[in-house]
Amino acid sequence: MAAVDVPVALLGYGTVGSAVDRLLREQAADIERATGHRLRVVKALVRDPERDRGDGAPPTTTDFAEIRDDPEVAVVAEVMGGLDPAGEYVLELLRAGKPVVTANKQLVARRGDELFAAAAGGGVQLRFEASVCAAIPVIKVLREALVVTHVHRVLGIVNGTTNFVLTEMEGGATYDEALAEAQRLGYAEADPTEDVSGLDSAAKMAILATVAFGSRVTPDDVACEGLERIELADVEAARELDMVVRLVGSATLIDGQVDVRVRPALVDRRHPLAAIEGAFNAVSLQGDAIREITLEGPGAGGIETASAVVADLIAVVGTTGTGFLQNDACWRELPRLPEGEVASPFYVRIEVADRPGVLALVALRLAAKEISVARLVQRPGEGSATLHIVTHEAPAGRLRDALDEIDALDETRAPASALAVISDRGVAELGWR
Amino acid sequence: MAAVDVPVALLGYGTVGSAVDRLLREQAADIERATGHRLRVVKALVRDPERDRGDGAPPTTTDFAEIRDDPEVAVVAEVMGGLDPAGEYVLELLRAGKPVVTANKQLVARRGDELFAAAAGGGVQLRFEASVCAAIPVIKVLREALVVTHVHRVLGIVNGTTNFVLTEMEGGATYDEALAEAQRLGYAEADPTEDVSGLDSAAKMAILATVAFGSRVTPDDVACEGLERIELADVEAARELDMVVRLVGSATLIDGQVDVRVRPALVDRRHPLAAIEGAFNAVSLQGDAIREITLEGPGAGGIETASAVVADLIAVVGTTGTGFLQNDACWRELPRLPEGEVASPFYVRIEVADRPGVLALVALRLAAKEISVARLVQRPGEGSATLHIVTHEAPAGRLRDALDEIDALDETRAPASALAVISDRGVAELGWR
Repeated sequence: MAAVDVPVALLGYGTVGSAVDRLLREQAADIERATGHRLRVVKALVRDPERDRGDGAPPTTTDFAEIRDDPEVAVVAEVMGGLDPAGEYVLELLRAGKPVVTANKQLVARRGDELFAAAAGGGVQLRFEASVCAAIPVIKVLREALVVTHVHRVLGIVNGTTNFVLTEMEGGATYDEALAEAQRLGYAEADPTEDVSGLDSAAKMAILATVAFGSRVTPDDVACEGLERIELADVEAARELDMVVRLVGSATLIDGQVDVRVRPALVDRRHPLAAIEGAFNAVSLQGDAIREITLEGPGAGGIETASAVVADLIAVVGTTGTGFLQNDACWRELPRLPEGEVASPFYVRIEVADRPGVLALVALRLAAKEISVARLVQRPGEGSATLHIVTHEAPAGRLRDALDEIDALDETRAPASALAVISDRGVAELGWR
Repeated sequence: MAAVDVPVALLGYGTVGSAVDRLLREQAADIERATGHRLRVVKALVRDPERDRGDGAPPTTTDFAEIRDDPEVAVVAEVMGGLDPAGEYVLELLRAGKPVVTANKQLVARRGDELFAAAAGGGVQLRFEASVCAAIPVIKVLREALVVTHVHRVLGIVNGTTNFVLTEMEGGATYDEALAEAQRLGYAEADPTEDVSGLDSAAKMAILATVAFGSRVTPDDVACEGLERIELADVEAARELDMVVRLVGSATLIDGQVDVRVRPALVDRRHPLAAIEGAFNAVSLQGDAIREITLEGPGAGGIETASAVVADLIAVVGTTGTGFLQNDACWRELPRLPEGEVASPFYVRIEVADRPGVLALVALRLAAKEISVARLVQRPGEGSATLHIVTHEAPAGRLRDALDEIDALDETRAPASALAVISDRGVAELGWR
């Protein structure tokens, strides 16, 4: 059977775009054997047409309309990044009836509604595997493998930079030292704000929540806290509890309400996410029929991202006309769980005056908000003492109220700090070493 | 758009079959929304038509021909298990032009060539996600997400029973106690031979190797060693090295030659497979563009297996006519790597007479076979001493030859025991606690 020729256009020919082109050329025989189609890049949109792109690079253009209006182009991969003009380009392509594969997390997270409306209107597919965790096929698994499983919780370490920083801090580095090392190795940008603030994770969690729950979640819906206030004391406290500090994205569906957040948390060593070290990513999916499935791997990188783009290109080609599972994942509107009602066990650290009765004062404030203490250790310091507390599951709002009252006590030396705890074991089973 | 009606028949209506039926009924709205198709079980092949199968159960038949010859039946799920008559039934269905989804690992592993030839002849799909690790979508990921990645190594913990036993042994139980507990909890059969011998893992690894390398591997091609000779001393030695003992399936492609085996191994705590506890399964896929992607989750269970069967049914329906990635994964014949040439670092334990010079004798025998020692600890016992050795990477055949010579020494008190070591770190970085 003769191979079907599939001309592909690229928006962008940087690290990811050139890797897509290279994979399509080098793996052409594999792709043709598996799918019966021969995909080849016929044109790439670039800013500087004069730059030398090496042997075998496709013809380039600086004029988007040349790609949009070329009837030969069967499918387009958007690998230029940024919201603007990438967003308008993708919309125009979809409206013009061209299927699009995108690696652009901010675009999918922020403008998913418009994009999918345009795809539906144009009768074409929009795929976005590469927008979340590069080569880890979590979108495919959620949409295709778990179609009859109600996934009610997604937990993810979806940013490699912050995970690298936290892993370095476990080894004794300070936050600043760890970040500098991440920059030296190319894991972190010169301006690392997007990573360390949690905003990069928030966009990915918005996409995952939308696909998992079928209800649109945008980055603005994601409560987001970054690494900025993590101290070595947190990392050490985690170690004492046989846990690790991780920047964890969570998306939870409870009683028809959705909560999506990114925050540093203490993760039990026995939880699959605790094993994720360095710049790796992992996503755990909890659902009715599957209990918990975890996918882990490199969550970034040019070739890794390109491999996801190519898999999506092939999927578009292989399912054109059947519309298989590629409608908008979003089909309902679920309300958000009110902020303070999100429950979790917490680790709390409070520096207090070292004198009798202080512990009782603190315990009373917690009890008044019906927050139950699972474990408590008091460690003496210089002229003060530190209380380390693990609570049973409690709503975040009630904990905040109790900590505000505790912070106001004369006996409190520094504001209390709290981190969520993620453990499959009961917190009562945890214990300080 | 009106939903397309898709009548499904089941071969078998036991734990998995009834769960498939239930999922299709309970999730009908979800499936229709995602795919535009309404799947419903119209007939189930059973042995005892009189048994009460509860409300909503489909009509049953004891006559296979009724399903094969029913023009209404669009797709069939084989969930009866066993090689015979399941194999003939599936062949007849495929030849009759009916797509088949199967959960039958022995059937796919042993008769894959015939089955896929029949599927190609009938112009229909054969899908088999549920045959390996239940709900963990490793076949889909290998075939669809990693289509442009040359996966050159698959490492898997693909049997929950043995993993449970080994995890219990880490807690101090003997092999017999751990196995009895697994039987009590329903993780192990009354006759656990298939699990503890490694044969169950071997069938799954044969399927994974075939899909990953595109060359047919059958269970007879898999070198297989079970748990039988594992002792608490191995588990304790592993702990001292900050490792765990796991029954590891490996499929490796080296220089165009294939090696597939199942054996107990020492796994470095930092390796993703070391974190897999209890009855869970995990598969790590190493490839060019992806580095290492690991999938973990429950590898068995009725509802888990059923969810994979349903995902395959939906995939068949969604890609009918496009043939998308569902030809035989096997397209070439690769030779097997000769048995003794498979290289790995090894942990070796030797009980020797406790007198000067014995260590030198042992070291000489290893050196004569060019086996390089990374670490060595000698521990005194009662009237004898135990040598614990970690070697650098060495071919298994050369190690075996050296150990045969060591076993023949007058100073050796018991035959040497060796286990492969799996570590992403260099073995020189390992050290006894």
